[in-house]
Amino acid sequence: MRVDGKRVAIVGATGAVGTEMISVLHRRAFPLSGLELFASERSAERKLDTPFGTLTVKPFTLEAAQACDVVLLAVSGDFAKKHARALGEKGAVVIDNSSAFRYDPDVPLVVPEINGRLARGQRLIANPNCTTAVLVMALNPLYAAFGLEKVIVSSYQATSGAGAAAVEELKRETANWLAGREVGHEHFVHPIPFNVIPHIDTFQDNGYTREEMKVVWETRKILDVPNLPVSCTAVRIPTIRAHAEAVTIETAKPVDPAVARQILSEAPGVRLIDDPAANAYPMPLTASGAYDVEVGRIRQNLIFGERGLDFFVCGDQLLKGAALNAVQIAEVAAA
Amino acid sequence: MRVDGKRVAIVGATGAVGTEMISVLHRRAFPLSGLELFASERSAERKLDTPFGTLTVKPFTLEAAQACDVVLLAVSGDFAKKHARALGEKGAVVIDNSSAFRYDPDVPLVVPEINGRLARGQRLIANPNCTTAVLVMALNPLYAAFGLEKVIVSSYQATSGAGAAAVEELKRETANWLAGREVGHEHFVHPIPFNVIPHIDTFQDNGYTREEMKVVWETRKILDVPNLPVSCTAVRIPTIRAHAEAVTIETAKPVDPAVARQILSEAPGVRLIDDPAANAYPMPLTASGAYDVEVGRIRQNLIFGERGLDFFVCGDQLLKGAALNAVQIAEVAAA
Repeated sequence: MRVDGKRVAIVGATGAVGTEMISVLHRRAFPLSGLELFASERSAERKLDTPFGTLTVKPFTLEAAQACDVVLLAVSGDFAKKHARALGEKGAVVIDNSSAFRYDPDVPLVVPEINGRLARGQRLIANPNCTTAVLVMALNPLYAAFGLEKVIVSSYQATSGAGAAAVEELKRETANWLAGREVGHEHFVHPIPFNVIPHIDTFQDNGYTREEMKVVWETRKILDVPNLPVSCTAVRIPTIRAHAEAVTIETAKPVDPAVARQILSEAPGVRLIDDPAANAYPMPLTASGAYDVEVGRIRQNLIFGERGLDFFVCGDQLLKGAALNAVQIAEVAAA
Repeated sequence: MRVDGKRVAIVGATGAVGTEMISVLHRRAFPLSGLELFASERSAERKLDTPFGTLTVKPFTLEAAQACDVVLLAVSGDFAKKHARALGEKGAVVIDNSSAFRYDPDVPLVVPEINGRLARGQRLIANPNCTTAVLVMALNPLYAAFGLEKVIVSSYQATSGAGAAAVEELKRETANWLAGREVGHEHFVHPIPFNVIPHIDTFQDNGYTREEMKVVWETRKILDVPNLPVSCTAVRIPTIRAHAEAVTIETAKPVDPAVARQILSEAPGVRLIDDPAANAYPMPLTASGAYDVEVGRIRQNLIFGERGLDFFVCGDQLLKGAALNAVQIAEVAAA
């Protein structure tokens, strides 16, 4: 802890994203003068083993959290809607991981490598949807170089995107499946072991799920292209962490795969893994626990020809898709 | 067995597809007068429990197989290249599940619901790639009604597509993973438990895998649209059976999702499962073991507007993608 550092609060500190936030603050040596962990009454007073030692989780109170310099919200949208504005009233910078404020024109939606400047001087900043955050890390450098006409995404989303209990469900029910026991489900609408569920978040009137529309809305907002044609199919699969995405783009200018590869190899926060001869491409196996978003399988798309590119991305959605991005925003906003 | 029936040989009878062929012949009450099971020396003389009773698997000889009316090949492309033509020389109809003859202009590539007429009177007929067979079942009725300008596919492919031993690897290594033991891999290039591998079959010079190009080449041949713009990303995921695919199409004529739904609900071999309010959509959980290919998540695509459609298909690739389709071809060709 540093005397000249910031006092940081994490609300929802015991969840999948909250625990990663603690770890990321430590790994990135965020200049802390204090760390307050808050959770719901159910988890409060729990002792949490952290890289900063054993810390006690407190029940959330507006007053205690307001007193911090930075408040990281890893809670539901309802909770954020109720408290986020008030939390900033005493001067704290509030970074919200829920979707509550992402579509509010007055609230910046920030991925620091892309639009970090928007976070400066703000009281409330929204952290994007995890699938979108992973996608735009690869998309933005290509957009800057070649422009974008169309973006078509199919996702392969890990169970940890639905929280820590959902991961436990995958592990427990997979063990049941393998043992020939009955397979149950609670966090997922259907059994998840050895299954694929093309349904994340609620269905909208247009037949897309809200998760799919988040990718559309948030990609447009982060890239600042309000009418960018984007479509998505969001699919839950039986993996633990790191979302993968198959992406097809049509660009405005001709795009050479070798040049795209060069650009992505130099993009901050991106790790180019694209060596088919060595069986090297993005995978959850290698992307899990990593800060960088993996990009590979880069090839000229067969339909859009010289203005088309296919690629595969994989990124740890608890890190770049949530905790890491939130802490990176805090680094910019509280600087 | 029927006196007036056909004498059928299955070559590769002990593999994932071969064993399904035996079961499909029984379930569909194929008019058999005899069933000969052949396998490599390694598996030969094995007793196999089948719905027809316990049968002895014999080592393959050209003479014994040639004597049958129908020969179903569930073997490697190399084996098929070597023996398929000779097998038909005495009058047998040979149906090859490998890719050896699929791109031969003289050999029909048949999905009976689409182009079954091409199988009549032929000595050698190719059975399509499993991912393609599942795809075209949904694609063809839409093509007939609305035309097709573009087809973009991302697949979620089950381990049984790589054979019975690959499924055992998934089960065994998943158990190892859950027990905290070391996770190995032999049939897959990387460990498959809780992972995603965007690499099926070998890489081509254009950066696509051969599996992805099979979807392109075979969709064009089956629909008989030689230059149809198709692209695919083929991905192995940790499921047991039934390949799923997220599909975006641009049509030639405007397409109404409700009309598309109606058309698919009437298409033979297709089961429409598209009731988001009831959490009903295609999944491996329901498609495994089923003859029909499931189609759902039908919605107007956000990019192509009234000429665009998104949908999700899931079909048992060992059945419609292999054994069932081969037996259906035999029914037409040997009629």
